[in-house]
Amino acid sequence: MKLNVTILPANITIAVPYGTNVLEAIRKAKVPFAAVCGGKGRCGKCLVEEVSGLAPATKREKKILKEQSAKDGMRLACQARIVKNATVTVPAARGMAESKAGLKGEEIWNIAPRFSLEKLEIPKASASEPASLTCRLKKALAEKGKEDVEISLNLLRRIATMSSDRIAVLIEGNRLVDVLEGDCEKPICGLALDIGTTTMAGYLVELSSGRQLSVAAMENPQASFGADILSRISSIRRKPENLQVLHQLLINGVNELIERVTDAAGVSREFIYDLVAVGNTCMIHFFLGISPQSLAVAPYHAVLEEAIEVRAPDLKIAINKNGLVRTLPIIRSFVGADTVGAILGSGMPNSRNPTLLIDIGTNGEIVLKTKDEMAACSAAAGPAFEGARILYGMRATAGAIDHVRVGDGSDFEIHTINGLPPKGICGSGLIDAIYASRLLGLMDGSGRILPKESVPGPLRHRVVPWGKGRAIVLTQESETEAGQPIILTQQDIRQVQLAKGAIRAGIEILMRELGLTINSLDRIILAGAFGSYISRESARGIGLIPPLPLDRIVSVGNAAGEGAKMALLSKDVYAESLMLARKVKYIPLSGREDFLRLYLKEMHFPEPPAF
Amino acid sequence: MKLNVTILPANITIAVPYGTNVLEAIRKAKVPFAAVCGGKGRCGKCLVEEVSGLAPATKREKKILKEQSAKDGMRLACQARIVKNATVTVPAARGMAESKAGLKGEEIWNIAPRFSLEKLEIPKASASEPASLTCRLKKALAEKGKEDVEISLNLLRRIATMSSDRIAVLIEGNRLVDVLEGDCEKPICGLALDIGTTTMAGYLVELSSGRQLSVAAMENPQASFGADILSRISSIRRKPENLQVLHQLLINGVNELIERVTDAAGVSREFIYDLVAVGNTCMIHFFLGISPQSLAVAPYHAVLEEAIEVRAPDLKIAINKNGLVRTLPIIRSFVGADTVGAILGSGMPNSRNPTLLIDIGTNGEIVLKTKDEMAACSAAAGPAFEGARILYGMRATAGAIDHVRVGDGSDFEIHTINGLPPKGICGSGLIDAIYASRLLGLMDGSGRILPKESVPGPLRHRVVPWGKGRAIVLTQESETEAGQPIILTQQDIRQVQLAKGAIRAGIEILMRELGLTINSLDRIILAGAFGSYISRESARGIGLIPPLPLDRIVSVGNAAGEGAKMALLSKDVYAESLMLARKVKYIPLSGREDFLRLYLKEMHFPEPPAF
Repeated sequence: MKLNVTILPANITIAVPYGTNVLEAIRKAKVPFAAVCGGKGRCGKCLVEEVSGLAPATKREKKILKEQSAKDGMRLACQARIVKNATVTVPAARGMAESKAGLKGEEIWNIAPRFSLEKLEIPKASASEPASLTCRLKKALAEKGKEDVEISLNLLRRIATMSSDRIAVLIEGNRLVDVLEGDCEKPICGLALDIGTTTMAGYLVELSSGRQLSVAAMENPQASFGADILSRISSIRRKPENLQVLHQLLINGVNELIERVTDAAGVSREFIYDLVAVGNTCMIHFFLGISPQSLAVAPYHAVLEEAIEVRAPDLKIAINKNGLVRTLPIIRSFVGADTVGAILGSGMPNSRNPTLLIDIGTNGEIVLKTKDEMAACSAAAGPAFEGARILYGMRATAGAIDHVRVGDGSDFEIHTINGLPPKGICGSGLIDAIYASRLLGLMDGSGRILPKESVPGPLRHRVVPWGKGRAIVLTQESETEAGQPIILTQQDIRQVQLAKGAIRAGIEILMRELGLTINSLDRIILAGAFGSYISRESARGIGLIPPLPLDRIVSVGNAAGEGAKMALLSKDVYAESLMLARKVKYIPLSGREDFLRLYLKEMHFPEPPAF
Repeated sequence: MKLNVTILPANITIAVPYGTNVLEAIRKAKVPFAAVCGGKGRCGKCLVEEVSGLAPATKREKKILKEQSAKDGMRLACQARIVKNATVTVPAARGMAESKAGLKGEEIWNIAPRFSLEKLEIPKASASEPASLTCRLKKALAEKGKEDVEISLNLLRRIATMSSDRIAVLIEGNRLVDVLEGDCEKPICGLALDIGTTTMAGYLVELSSGRQLSVAAMENPQASFGADILSRISSIRRKPENLQVLHQLLINGVNELIERVTDAAGVSREFIYDLVAVGNTCMIHFFLGISPQSLAVAPYHAVLEEAIEVRAPDLKIAINKNGLVRTLPIIRSFVGADTVGAILGSGMPNSRNPTLLIDIGTNGEIVLKTKDEMAACSAAAGPAFEGARILYGMRATAGAIDHVRVGDGSDFEIHTINGLPPKGICGSGLIDAIYASRLLGLMDGSGRILPKESVPGPLRHRVVPWGKGRAIVLTQESETEAGQPIILTQQDIRQVQLAKGAIRAGIEILMRELGLTINSLDRIILAGAFGSYISRESARGIGLIPPLPLDRIVSVGNAAGEGAKMALLSKDVYAESLMLARKVKYIPLSGREDFLRLYLKEMHFPEPPAF
């Protein structure tokens, strides 16, 4: 049984099977819209307005809607199912209408991509005016408002052998870069590329409409040279040829990603003409084949900060050979193009009130904006939040404890990914577990696990001896996959303290630099996948982020990738990125005496709220 | 025995062997100066002022000096020999101080090449300001007055691995294109390239000084596809793959020429960063790999008229891989980049009085300039002046009759190249022979060879029957190499009439278009090798060029190559070339009724002057 669903305001109606969820319908209709967590019902960001035809919200959907303080009539696209002919309204199409919810002062940016297609008829040469082909072509272009268009040599060669006077040309700024004969109804595409140290993501969009055609993600193939940046850089120090090897691995990965997104969208990669890449400073260096070695030694400077534009063949990127490959600019040292992307993608430049943006990873990139100024720093958080150096630490994959809360029985309530028996604990679970331990009185403000005897009676089984110290038992052996208890050791807690202390101290330094106090802060934006998964309450509870009311702490998902898409789709946004990179004041933390003092202070946990 | 020679105003003194000619000394001292005919004592253009120390002028030198109306104290550099310690003054260094003698309203152009070398010290990064390498490099550049310099990706990669902070960088406009470590004392070079249908010439110059380091010429390797443009184009029509073959032949030829000039100068081709090419429209198309087929069919339009700039690797030109390859613009159809070069190289743009520029070849390109306007046309002269379709026609090689005059005995006085027994007649000889025949009363104004009985008695042996008509005997069988008389047939004369009629009719059309009469014409400039070799008196005598006094008819040699050198050495001249190509009004001749009428009229010969 097929049902019709109409998506407003685009007013596109398509037929879908009974029970299809709204997100699937929106994807099928190719309406600009994105789901931060990919439709897993986690992020609560895919809000749509129900007009009619959806099944009532499930318990889970209701819970998330409540968490998101969603208005009446709003539904989660990934959860709500179509059970009659239905109509829904998606947020106003803004190129990518994703994840900006809750940001103030937003402005609409227009879709104005670098590349555009023009259909032309070239006037014929006459005996009295035997103008060259290019001269007549330029005349036809001028009539379309495209003045002084340059023509590349390769194209000239092809134009010289054309038989038809009716052609479609692809224009890039003031350059003519391709001639399409015959079928020129195919979408001219661009790829927004987010190169993470761990994961790469690609978003294929139609340049003229901003429509997202497909998305794909894959592991960064450099992983075989180490999970973190420093081990990849040291492999170059040991063997300089490895720069080329690592560069090529990354390029091959990008080309595989391109194959995946184009396969998914059913578009030839020849139709991709523009690629905008973001990534941390080291990944941008690797992507461009530039040695990142100077990032590994004091004073930790980059080779390159500027935005770069090269032709696709220069980097052997498998898109159209006339295509462009661009990187967003780097702010400085470890505040990279991903941060510039996140600033853009989070809508931060439009916010007039003091706003804090945090992208938590191995490095925590922090940006603070006042009405007139922006400052940024990078705090070396270490790999604890990725599960490294944590006894039972693991990545956020099936079986990982991803959420821990204080349940009704005043004890831990554990949640695992996919509901499997617990195998270990990932970053978001770690933050939750520490906050819950604090709430339950299992540790003090210094992070010390309290002795059994100082712990409330019913919870004494949670504290066990471990090595020379103690550990907190999260799950008993009977509950786990391996038949061993999953514990949080004193050392694990110290690792998290080091990580959160560094990030929070970085935040405090920026606040000082721009003369702000926590009270004057209007909003905290958590960017990146990790920012989407962590509990804002726990992050605030352990002091990772400043104590703001939850409704002023928002998660915006992969804002860096979003920013790359915006820069791809809008010359204005791209220009803004260049300006931003110059405007944002970089605050180096290393060797700063006040940073070290704050770091030590911020390793402590705040007092938990009274119940 | 070594003698010192001092060259003013450069004030360079070098030691040379006794008897060295001044031109050799100037070349050895690497003072900007050029000899139009390559030092053969033909062109009379290599005038220098003797201060002291030269042997007295020979009879030959005296004759040429007299022909050139040279002032007292002037000597021919290629003829005058150094026999004591000597001092000479060369014309004011104007980059290339060649062949402009006699032009009015000249202006000095400054040497301002596109590429320049800067020695820099890159400031170090500090902990409080860990600026990127490129950022610090740009700072060092800004201190040298080079703002907003872009850096290519390839270079960034190399910069990232540099160890020294002291470097020399090569800057192109606002782009940084190369880093030279260590020995950066080598000259940064450019190549001016003149691609003729028959011959290619390359001039290697040092960009910073304009000093010419070497010059080489070679046959255009496309000759195997036909001597003329049309046969090369038809080979493409027959087999489209031949475009690539002909393109590659030309590129290989250019690369061989590059090897020759660099070998001669003892410079690595890696030190060539800029190449400016001129050539006729068809050669520019072949050079760029663009099909010239549209030039062979009405309305005879080009694909490309614009100046093109590409990176050397894009054309597989064997200069530095960061080097630039540029072509001067084409005016329209058959008025090509060589004409733009000739206009520049002849100094024509600076002339305020009405000036006519003629470059005679298979096509005669004609440019007319008034105070405010310039117009150009191309007259299809055919190959007669290159010796084709002429019974005893040959190229201007050893044994060719290159000059014919009426000698003291009121009969032909024949001169051959290298003084060898005559083998045939080349273009300049042909023009002379016809004019001499006219002077001797052997033919009438219609070009008809007069019957024996109408010819003055002592010359009757000069007229012989030939086929259905007559011929003029230039040399008797006893005098020639092959033991056959060399004759000029009625058909030969008709071929020359067709050629000269077309060119002269083209001149007349331009005069009409710009409202000029012959009386208002101030100067005629003959450009190109052929223009250097022909007798101005004969050319005027047969009506090929308008009747101006000889001192207002100048030969300027390879002005096209000269213009390419000027554009290479001066951004201003290059910019002027772009402007010129738009400004010069193109006058198509084909299908013009008044052109056909003038053509028929101008095939006649003017009345010879009374003796």
